[in-house]
Amino acid sequence: MAEVSWVAETLYPDWGQRFRVVRELAHVRSPFQEILIVETASHGRAMLLDGVVQITEADEFAYQEMIAHVPLLAHGDARRVLIIGAGDGGVLRRVLSHRRVEKATMVEIDPDVVRLAREHLPAIGGSAWDDPRAEVLIADGIDYVRMAEAGSYDVIIVDSTDPIGVGEVLFTDEFYADCARIVGPRGVVVNQSGVPFMQAGELAETSARRRRHFADVSAYLAAVPTYVGGFMTLGWSAQDPGLRRHDAATLRARADKAGILGTTRYWSPEVQVASFALPPYIAELLPEH
Amino acid sequence: MAEVSWVAETLYPDWGQRFRVVRELAHVRSPFQEILIVETASHGRAMLLDGVVQITEADEFAYQEMIAHVPLLAHGDARRVLIIGAGDGGVLRRVLSHRRVEKATMVEIDPDVVRLAREHLPAIGGSAWDDPRAEVLIADGIDYVRMAEAGSYDVIIVDSTDPIGVGEVLFTDEFYADCARIVGPRGVVVNQSGVPFMQAGELAETSARRRRHFADVSAYLAAVPTYVGGFMTLGWSAQDPGLRRHDAATLRARADKAGILGTTRYWSPEVQVASFALPPYIAELLPEH
Repeated sequence: MAEVSWVAETLYPDWGQRFRVVRELAHVRSPFQEILIVETASHGRAMLLDGVVQITEADEFAYQEMIAHVPLLAHGDARRVLIIGAGDGGVLRRVLSHRRVEKATMVEIDPDVVRLAREHLPAIGGSAWDDPRAEVLIADGIDYVRMAEAGSYDVIIVDSTDPIGVGEVLFTDEFYADCARIVGPRGVVVNQSGVPFMQAGELAETSARRRRHFADVSAYLAAVPTYVGGFMTLGWSAQDPGLRRHDAATLRARADKAGILGTTRYWSPEVQVASFALPPYIAELLPEH
Repeated sequence: MAEVSWVAETLYPDWGQRFRVVRELAHVRSPFQEILIVETASHGRAMLLDGVVQITEADEFAYQEMIAHVPLLAHGDARRVLIIGAGDGGVLRRVLSHRRVEKATMVEIDPDVVRLAREHLPAIGGSAWDDPRAEVLIADGIDYVRMAEAGSYDVIIVDSTDPIGVGEVLFTDEFYADCARIVGPRGVVVNQSGVPFMQAGELAETSARRRRHFADVSAYLAAVPTYVGGFMTLGWSAQDPGLRRHDAATLRARADKAGILGTTRYWSPEVQVASFALPPYIAELLPEH
């Protein structure tokens, strides 16, 4: 009989999820982080970075759809999209599913994440890697945004790890100032902001910091099965508060035009509207509420 | 140095959460189930029944507020409330926080759950146990609803375990038929319907069954940190579809009148409206969608 093996997430010292592992596919210490890819018994393949679950095949749709479709449809005419992180390719795939997107630049710092994801998680990125509209760069996001021209992107999606280790620079004043310059007055920036029930400081601190560079700072919700701890939040930054106030009919028409209506399992026009209704325990973490 | 001890939830064989345990407070095999109450390092005290987490002090607000406030405010004039299960007292406390409620009957099958919750989780039920409007009965819910008079309650809240073991009868045709008779044409019945990402059959099967007895069957969402796996669903059954279509302004006015406005950490009028927006992967489990 084979030995039963589990991988336990180490994000929180005293609580967390664990997966029964069928087999280990890759275990690499890159110059940036420890990368582990396993076949789980319950969630398909999963990738962990420094012990923290980043993605599983079974539930990636929830996170990817919400981090990609919401800002693109809120913007309404997003043609140039910058993705920071997201080395597994899942956000890139969702962004490129919008037929009017002309260019999606993905900037990932760790080439081993891209290499291992393409090898062991091919379904996550799918054909997006070879889409002529995709530009995949191995670079530090903080350097990329410093060099990017003002107004050169419509939407920026920051799919970073938590603000420890390699992702820490993606939560600085300097980074947000460059993001604001790059998207200009009509743009939107969304960023992974953690699970407030467990990591309240993450949303509170980054929201206060983003507020120095954007007139409208808020957050929206996604309940992602393997980001345990209730709702995770996606930070929202824009100059125009109207971008997060569209009704479902407007969003439906835009999704239809984008070619994504009927392709989603988590996102819907009504879910997008609903995702901005924050429970008080989350709303109180924002600068204005 | 003390030995590090963990309790791992056994709801799913290949995936689940675990808690670091500071100490065990009670471990009892009642005639109905195994009851375990522990002090965790992360979530305060927690109660598990047959290895499944029922409640923790840290996050009970999310579940209790949503299972209690949503149907009472949707009804708008709920004076008589029947609670099936919920032996920890948390639902009873939230129901009685509505000042216009005249009677809250709680029917719990397992006296050991009530006894141990009152002893070790006193904050969950608070003073509700001694409220003159509370009637706490140790009885089988299926028997209670069979005997209850038609039209004798405005709202029924079924806070059961999953449909295995002792809770199984609370998912039968017979039970739902009695519930429909008891609440009549103006009433609402809500019931714990599991976490669809992991337990899709639970919502699908019970919704189809409830549809035989109610004209309007749907579900609403709560992201409860320790009911891991993304959204959990609360089943919704009524004859009047208008009950789940109130706008936030109406709900706010009712909450104000009920005396609960500003007392909640998860519920808000906007969150109640948003909770009925179901992601497609959940909506497709309902009889009509």
